[in-house]
Amino acid sequence: MAEKWVYLSSEGSEDMRALLGGKGAGLAEMTNAGLPVPPSFTVTTEACLAYFREGNKFPPGMWDQVKEAVAVLEEQTGKKFGDPSNPLLVSVRSGARMSMPGMMDTVLNVGLNEETVESMADQAGERFAYDSYRRLISMFGRIVKRIEGEKFEEHLDRQKAKTEGGRDVDLTVDMFKQIVADHKELYKAELGEEFPDDVWQQLGQAIEAVFASWFGPNATTYRRLNNLPDDWGTAVNICTMVFGNMGEDSGSGVAFTRNPITGENKLYGEYLINAQGEDVVSGARTPMPIAELQRVNPEIYEQFEEVARMLERHYREMQDLELTVERGKLWMLQTRTGKRTARASVKIAVDLANEGIISREEALTRVFTGDVDALLHPMFDPEAKESAKEDGNHVATGLNASPGAATGVAVFDSDRAMERAEGGEDVILVRPETSPDDVGGMLLSKGVLTQHGGATSHAAVVARGNNLPCVVGCEEIRINLPGRRFTVNSHEVNEGDIISIDGSTGEVFLGAIPTLEVDLEENLELAELLSWADDVRQLGVYTNADYPRDAQVARSFGAEGIGLCRTEHMFFEESRRPAVVGMIMARNDEERAKYLEQLLPYQREDFEGIFEAMDGLPVIIRLIDPPMHEFLPSRESLLEEVVRLRTTGENPEELAEKEEMLSVVESMWEVNPMMGLRGCRAGLMYPGLTEMQVRAIFQAACNQTRKGVVVKVEVMIPLVSHLNELREEVSKLRAVAQEVMQEEGVEVEHKFGTMIETPRAALTAGELAQEAEFFSFGTNDLTQMTFGFSRDDSEGKFLIEYLERGILEVNPFQSLDQEGVGQLVAQAVREGREAREDIELGICGEHGGDPDSIDFFHRVGLAYVSCSPFRVPVARLAAAQAALRHERQITHVRDL
Amino acid sequence: MAEKWVYLSSEGSEDMRALLGGKGAGLAEMTNAGLPVPPSFTVTTEACLAYFREGNKFPPGMWDQVKEAVAVLEEQTGKKFGDPSNPLLVSVRSGARMSMPGMMDTVLNVGLNEETVESMADQAGERFAYDSYRRLISMFGRIVKRIEGEKFEEHLDRQKAKTEGGRDVDLTVDMFKQIVADHKELYKAELGEEFPDDVWQQLGQAIEAVFASWFGPNATTYRRLNNLPDDWGTAVNICTMVFGNMGEDSGSGVAFTRNPITGENKLYGEYLINAQGEDVVSGARTPMPIAELQRVNPEIYEQFEEVARMLERHYREMQDLELTVERGKLWMLQTRTGKRTARASVKIAVDLANEGIISREEALTRVFTGDVDALLHPMFDPEAKESAKEDGNHVATGLNASPGAATGVAVFDSDRAMERAEGGEDVILVRPETSPDDVGGMLLSKGVLTQHGGATSHAAVVARGNNLPCVVGCEEIRINLPGRRFTVNSHEVNEGDIISIDGSTGEVFLGAIPTLEVDLEENLELAELLSWADDVRQLGVYTNADYPRDAQVARSFGAEGIGLCRTEHMFFEESRRPAVVGMIMARNDEERAKYLEQLLPYQREDFEGIFEAMDGLPVIIRLIDPPMHEFLPSRESLLEEVVRLRTTGENPEELAEKEEMLSVVESMWEVNPMMGLRGCRAGLMYPGLTEMQVRAIFQAACNQTRKGVVVKVEVMIPLVSHLNELREEVSKLRAVAQEVMQEEGVEVEHKFGTMIETPRAALTAGELAQEAEFFSFGTNDLTQMTFGFSRDDSEGKFLIEYLERGILEVNPFQSLDQEGVGQLVAQAVREGREAREDIELGICGEHGGDPDSIDFFHRVGLAYVSCSPFRVPVARLAAAQAALRHERQITHVRDL
Repeated sequence: MAEKWVYLSSEGSEDMRALLGGKGAGLAEMTNAGLPVPPSFTVTTEACLAYFREGNKFPPGMWDQVKEAVAVLEEQTGKKFGDPSNPLLVSVRSGARMSMPGMMDTVLNVGLNEETVESMADQAGERFAYDSYRRLISMFGRIVKRIEGEKFEEHLDRQKAKTEGGRDVDLTVDMFKQIVADHKELYKAELGEEFPDDVWQQLGQAIEAVFASWFGPNATTYRRLNNLPDDWGTAVNICTMVFGNMGEDSGSGVAFTRNPITGENKLYGEYLINAQGEDVVSGARTPMPIAELQRVNPEIYEQFEEVARMLERHYREMQDLELTVERGKLWMLQTRTGKRTARASVKIAVDLANEGIISREEALTRVFTGDVDALLHPMFDPEAKESAKEDGNHVATGLNASPGAATGVAVFDSDRAMERAEGGEDVILVRPETSPDDVGGMLLSKGVLTQHGGATSHAAVVARGNNLPCVVGCEEIRINLPGRRFTVNSHEVNEGDIISIDGSTGEVFLGAIPTLEVDLEENLELAELLSWADDVRQLGVYTNADYPRDAQVARSFGAEGIGLCRTEHMFFEESRRPAVVGMIMARNDEERAKYLEQLLPYQREDFEGIFEAMDGLPVIIRLIDPPMHEFLPSRESLLEEVVRLRTTGENPEELAEKEEMLSVVESMWEVNPMMGLRGCRAGLMYPGLTEMQVRAIFQAACNQTRKGVVVKVEVMIPLVSHLNELREEVSKLRAVAQEVMQEEGVEVEHKFGTMIETPRAALTAGELAQEAEFFSFGTNDLTQMTFGFSRDDSEGKFLIEYLERGILEVNPFQSLDQEGVGQLVAQAVREGREAREDIELGICGEHGGDPDSIDFFHRVGLAYVSCSPFRVPVARLAAAQAALRHERQITHVRDL
Repeated sequence: MAEKWVYLSSEGSEDMRALLGGKGAGLAEMTNAGLPVPPSFTVTTEACLAYFREGNKFPPGMWDQVKEAVAVLEEQTGKKFGDPSNPLLVSVRSGARMSMPGMMDTVLNVGLNEETVESMADQAGERFAYDSYRRLISMFGRIVKRIEGEKFEEHLDRQKAKTEGGRDVDLTVDMFKQIVADHKELYKAELGEEFPDDVWQQLGQAIEAVFASWFGPNATTYRRLNNLPDDWGTAVNICTMVFGNMGEDSGSGVAFTRNPITGENKLYGEYLINAQGEDVVSGARTPMPIAELQRVNPEIYEQFEEVARMLERHYREMQDLELTVERGKLWMLQTRTGKRTARASVKIAVDLANEGIISREEALTRVFTGDVDALLHPMFDPEAKESAKEDGNHVATGLNASPGAATGVAVFDSDRAMERAEGGEDVILVRPETSPDDVGGMLLSKGVLTQHGGATSHAAVVARGNNLPCVVGCEEIRINLPGRRFTVNSHEVNEGDIISIDGSTGEVFLGAIPTLEVDLEENLELAELLSWADDVRQLGVYTNADYPRDAQVARSFGAEGIGLCRTEHMFFEESRRPAVVGMIMARNDEERAKYLEQLLPYQREDFEGIFEAMDGLPVIIRLIDPPMHEFLPSRESLLEEVVRLRTTGENPEELAEKEEMLSVVESMWEVNPMMGLRGCRAGLMYPGLTEMQVRAIFQAACNQTRKGVVVKVEVMIPLVSHLNELREEVSKLRAVAQEVMQEEGVEVEHKFGTMIETPRAALTAGELAQEAEFFSFGTNDLTQMTFGFSRDDSEGKFLIEYLERGILEVNPFQSLDQEGVGQLVAQAVREGREAREDIELGICGEHGGDPDSIDFFHRVGLAYVSCSPFRVPVARLAAAQAALRHERQITHVRDL
């Protein structure tokens, strides 16, 4: 017995999506649900694959099964395929597992020929019959035989030109007949053969054309780009024709069961009276909103509304529907999950749950984390962005470093950016790269664009932390700083010219594009969804925040603690610079102690603010981390000054001063600062430095405790690679903490722990757990050292090209490399916990806000992830999805 | 029954070294071997520990056991302890498991008092008796009671001053009696009590003093510094006195069973007639060479020679002996393994094996790898070095980067170093750090001293590769380049001043120190020893060599292949620079191809030489590794030039040129170049670069094969961190190799493989083995990234201090960090071999020449280690020792 290649729609179901394709499964599902679906059948994806295996031949038995299925359709409709007296007409369309651009389009009206068209004319009028016939010939010619569509259009246009109105409706029967004749002539001229009158040839060739389109250039390219397999194949759906163009009591429409823009629970779509589906889409006539149908034909509307409701309940998801009304009878042609905006996605999921259609857990899996992220950032008006592209204003693409869209005047200098922003202008700060000196200007700008740098460059990190749209590593632009301009391709952008950047996509545009702002506070559905996420997730969600204001924002977004409070930002503030520089340049311990004493009250004040903002929640403070020379002027700028002063011979005093500073900077200069004297190494080599920080932390904690604030502080020692480093720092700092608490007479809940950010720390985590009460994975540095990819350099130099060429699938600084870096994390978790059962395990790298990474962190059993304040909502949802995904293997409906 | 605290020497053995101490075990061993040892016993180390546990009291039963043992001595000697008529005298000395400075010295003549001295006088003469008595009192006072020795000396000097000769022998009986009286008076004045006449009190207090000295400040400090445990304790040896000062037929001596300087198999030592052991050591009289004894007293000499031979055979090792002859009878007081020079160490081990005393395997374990290393490098004359230190000429200590001693004029610039060296002067090149531009000057210098840099800095690596003594990271010196001088503490060294450096210790001296040169070729014993090593070892020993001459040297030292041939050194040669710079600055692929074509013949020539030198042996060639900007002028020098030219306004053409070069360098500049665009990343990003290299390699291989040279080439792809990088490079390069071999019509044995030098490569080794036919562990970079320690920076900035403070025990760039980095190596070995059974595994980092690391590499089962040519002999021995160590657990005799 031959294999089963053909399924009647009554034989299929949603589960058979792989075999029948999405469209076929949908038809089957609707048929079985008793909905009004035109009788139909599906040739399977297996048949498609077998077709190629057989050397482009239908596999044995397939054609017979098609004929048998057509016989069933004939029985169900009481018509006969190719029968001159009462002909059955069918549509043929492709239907892969996923909808896929480049696949063969629909061929309608298969079954018409010189004979059957006559009987159609008898039944439905000549005009309708010849209109249908010319549609078949042009579609068949265009889609099956690849004749240029314009050539068929010409025939139509030529006839329309003869009418007064110039519209389709103005065409006469004779005109349609002439068009049919012209089409047939064209067909013969192009192909050297007649248009097939044999309806079985029409059907067979249409099916083959669908198969062939699977390996057509467009579909193949699409699969390559989207990393989809070639061995899915496509199904072919053969469906009895129904006609929306049979008069005023007929029509076609497309509709969503809910509003795909807002999510409102109301039918949304368009309906066109006396038209086929293609007429709705083509735009030749303006359809009416579907709501109008209620007035025009309340009976049909109610019937459709009922069907839509049924389908939504059946699929338990908002549906995108195609309908046709033939002489007052409703037919459903397609149903599929409807695309929607981020806002609608959240509202629909929450509403479906509240209506009892899906569970809350399922609602959580319905919303993409990207949707939540999008709701937190302004975006370009989609239409305006599209037309900007059409106008050629999209001039470059960099790395999408911090989401959100922004428009403003390009300014090339932080100070001028501040000036112009304070003067009321919207500013986009454009820099080769940014440094701590630029932070002031960044914070007053609407967006930041840099020529160099990667996803974890200074600009990217500051921007993400401040919810500032940011594109980095846009090497296509060439900045001329002295000239206050950049060039990109042949365009020149001068300071003050308006540009637009999309930090969600990395795109850079000339000119303004209007943005849509979103107000999170008012998005009650999102709040509800996230509260459900909180019930489900097992991971805590902390935030990375260095300032009280950031801590407050994060807390309002649901952060449950601070996972990373960097203390060095406090050293960069202008008022503190003299003391910082003095401390670094101190010639001996006494001198250094003097400057450290000056810094102490500043730091204490910083921490007091943070503790107050996080009252009752844990605050993990990382001791000073960057190389000390970052706090001094740059080697290059000093060198320039010194050479200039030497050459001119003017101002010898200034020269001497600069020379001294240069010699200090030179002596501190490192070839690879990222692996140099920083982190705990600085604590060990600069006596008094981390002691001062811990003193400030505990004085602040004691002061706030006395005021009634509940302080839970955790002191984190960075860049440890050997137990002895940690041991020496912890024992010294514990003593300071005890001393302060005794002096103040206050006990503060506290922990000492370490970052795991060198591979060796991960490899020896069992040992480190002897001294560490907590681990926080610093996955930025850990990724950097595990790959040997410098964060500051790699992305601009080769990482982006690696991604483009597919050498890497994802940027490991954005999504954790689970295979390599993940091994280290998993080992450290296991051994850390073996050595200290109650060790607190979390992660504070940039990966803390990435959903795939969050899934990994859930699986290895961390206690929390910590991310930028504006990633907190995303992390809450991602953590819930991870919990659900691994509890019971829920598949993401919208992923299918 | 009380514990056994006391062992007669007949009850002990060598195995009981932990319980009886080294000295006690030696006495026991000699006693049991039937050698003439004065009757003796030992109080155990356990007794010492119990003494402290009891609160500084003898443990129960100990004192009774001491008395019993004394009774045995009395029986054996026929004398009686404290008996006025025939008194037994004993010595009391400490004896820990290892000889340990700061432990209590010997107290002789215990048992003498006012009564027994008289009977001694009757037996051996009054002069001898009172001399012995004054020795007891002064030693007891000084050593047991800590009275200053000088005060006793004064008494002796006062009497000597009264004689004409002024020597000991000139003292009369009355004078000795006066000295005894003075000593006793001093004793009472200092301590408020009489010198004890009770001989049991003498013995008990002496034993207690030995115990107490275990926790004396000197011994405690020594143990801290050498990381020895406190809970070993010391034993106490009580030995019947024999007297070398009983006339012309008496005497004392110290001797080695073989010459400890040359290793010659002949007794070597000194003998002093009519003297106690302390007189031999004190230098008051000049002893004669032990050979003289053969003439003076052939009977005793023969007896001693026989005993020495017996002891050597018994211990199967060269011995260091103490002997005393009392009235013609030989007594052996001590035997222990003798210290020796490196040269003697090798000769003795080889001779002992050839004499059948030890096996060849044992001989291999007897020689320290450091001894072999020392034989390969010139060293300072030890006495001259000592006196240079006494004269205060040792002014600084840096990192011992490349062994060997050198003296020469300090020169601060590579060009002038070449000039002066070519003018016939010995030069020490002194630089802040070195760069490839300095190599010419380095190679003509006798030694290199740098202020910055670590064990794997450029200077260190080049120096080791060229067997050039080198001290790096000597931060104590401050170089003033324009002034052509450095200062260190208060000294100033100007260009042309003579300095000396010891690359084996890191020491820097002012002035010249004569060196001893060693000629390896003539050291037949070493050659023999190494040939035995080759029979035993399982690890292959390859070399790191970039030039044919290095390959030849290494081959003569026994290298079995080249494990690392770096190709970038070939790019640094002056004649090739224009093409290299052109290639880097090329604006498009065509332009780059033009320059690559210019480079091809150079590279081919390089490889031809290497293949010829290594005829028949494998050659592993690493494709270009460093960042491209290393081949361009430095950013700083360009910046200086540009600012200078801009400021002066002169020569606008040169300015434009420099500005262009600066802009290219700026665009290539990286914050952390070690983790930037280098290694396989350069191969992937510069089309044609590695293709050119592989083309050159295979053209050279084909040419040499045609000439009859047997070529085995392995192409190594560096800095891989992801399978796809390797896959893309390997597939591209394999095609080039095939193409060349087809063009040339020659088949060459070849492999493609990768370095494992990023943590991620190690973590995903199982995947990489899909593409790699071999792995070579690049442990330098692997260490760097696993710790996050920049090789270029860390050592000078903090690593040396880490080592000094004990935060790290060993420098992980010198000896592999087995715990952390070793985990990665072991995992990669395991998973690499699982994925590809016959994968070739080796290591080419600096650790390939380090014995501890070699032991590790043996254990994880690598096929070979590769090291600098001058480390090859060391590696051969170390590999053999590793094989022996893990075959059967041989303990290193000389380690005890």
